Amino acid sequence: MPFSRIYKLYFSPNRKYIRSLENLLGYVPGNLRLYRMAFRHRSVAVEVKNGAKNSNERLEFLGDAILGSVVAELLFKMYPYKDEGFLTEMRSKIVSRSNLNQLAKRLGLDEHIEFDNRALGHNNKQGSLLGDTFEAMIGAVYMDKDYNFTRNFLLNRIIKPHVDIHTLELTETNFKSKLIEWCQRHGKDVIFEIIPNEEGENTKLFTISVNVDGESCAIGRDYNKKNAEKLAAEKACEFLNI
Amino acid sequence: MPFSRIYKLYFSPNRKYIRSLENLLGYVPGNLRLYRMAFRHRSVAVEVKNGAKNSNERLEFLGDAILGSVVAELLFKMYPYKDEGFLTEMRSKIVSRSNLNQLAKRLGLDEHIEFDNRALGHNNKQGSLLGDTFEAMIGAVYMDKDYNFTRNFLLNRIIKPHVDIHTLELTETNFKSKLIEWCQRHGKDVIFEIIPNEEGENTKLFTISVNVDGESCAIGRDYNKKNAEKLAAEKACEFLNI
Repeated sequence: MPFSRIYKLYFSPNRKYIRSLENLLGYVPGNLRLYRMAFRHRSVAVEVKNGAKNSNERLEFLGDAILGSVVAELLFKMYPYKDEGFLTEMRSKIVSRSNLNQLAKRLGLDEHIEFDNRALGHNNKQGSLLGDTFEAMIGAVYMDKDYNFTRNFLLNRIIKPHVDIHTLELTETNFKSKLIEWCQRHGKDVIFEIIPNEEGENTKLFTISVNVDGESCAIGRDYNKKNAEKLAAEKACEFLNI
Repeated sequence: MPFSRIYKLYFSPNRKYIRSLENLLGYVPGNLRLYRMAFRHRSVAVEVKNGAKNSNERLEFLGDAILGSVVAELLFKMYPYKDEGFLTEMRSKIVSRSNLNQLAKRLGLDEHIEFDNRALGHNNKQGSLLGDTFEAMIGAVYMDKDYNFTRNFLLNRIIKPHVDIHTLELTETNFKSKLIEWCQRHGKDVIFEIIPNEEGENTKLFTISVNVDGESCAIGRDYNKKNAEKLAAEKACEFLNI
């Protein structure tokens, strides 16, 4: 065991924090400030300079991108004969807020997050807090290490043990029925409407709008009408936090 | 010069193609099949297996993700005190279809793309063909090399010489005025409407819908009303291909 590792785990004033991170991540972290920031929700952040806060939102932006490309490569290689529509859909399933929330919960991220309960809205409490923090954590891993490390970390410590990709593939997230069910439960009307193409527009594209109580809340576009509908339903679910 | 490089550039039956790629990319490519695929539009692709085509769309999916994370990191490090809203907006500007189309044109990608003119819709011709191919090319570079190579390729050969980030920062893409101007030119009404929050929803979130001729074509959500409006206008521009 190298000296720096021994120091960090047994003698550093931060040894308790370092050990809890090691339990979570499976390695001894380098730059602790990054991880502290990753677990700090905007509700407890303070201003550091010119209105910039030390919350996890910047790291979330970075982590979201890194996660997206690691998952893209995984799917690209895993499904050599599937088209980009399938790959995009699979990626949405894997990085969906509900999936990331579950993942974060299973990893025990909730014990690490610093946030102010009162400052969170009703929805946010159970909403995206966990998933957002998970992405911020990926951002911190990337900044602390590098792309390959983060890729291996995601594949070996997160995705392989916790994400059943084949089950996700089979359990089609039927956003349309999810949406319709939700609307019934909340006493709302929902219609899928075809929007005619503009003059000069590509006539092969279908545009479907989802109207909930007469209000369009999402649109989907695709060369295939069914897919446009699916896309619109998925976006509507995201918009309505269903 | 290593033997394999000499062989590729001077003796390989593909030497002409390899040299044209070297001119474009600045390095001697490894796996030519990847680059051939990256430059093949769906209009000239053929089926390879179970309906899967050898077009560039899968590589575009991958390249889009890699590009997104390289640009995310660049902006994250370049603007240490800007919030994630700013970073997201800057990334959208850099990877916008119009910016990628311009980039691709400047790199001379149009000379490499294989496509069937007749099979493209009116809009598509000047539309996303170049930008999409650019992303597919990034996917090919990644598959041929690795992340760090692709990152350096993008930063040093593409972004530094061809993308003026500071100018992009200053020239605010005013999507709202762009949208209003377009609607005036096309004799359409446009209204920005606040959608009231659902019961139990986070009350600090603003939801703005852009209605064009009474039809909602995009929505934006943000804690800041102005930002929600901007976001909605941006999405509407994307939706209407403005």
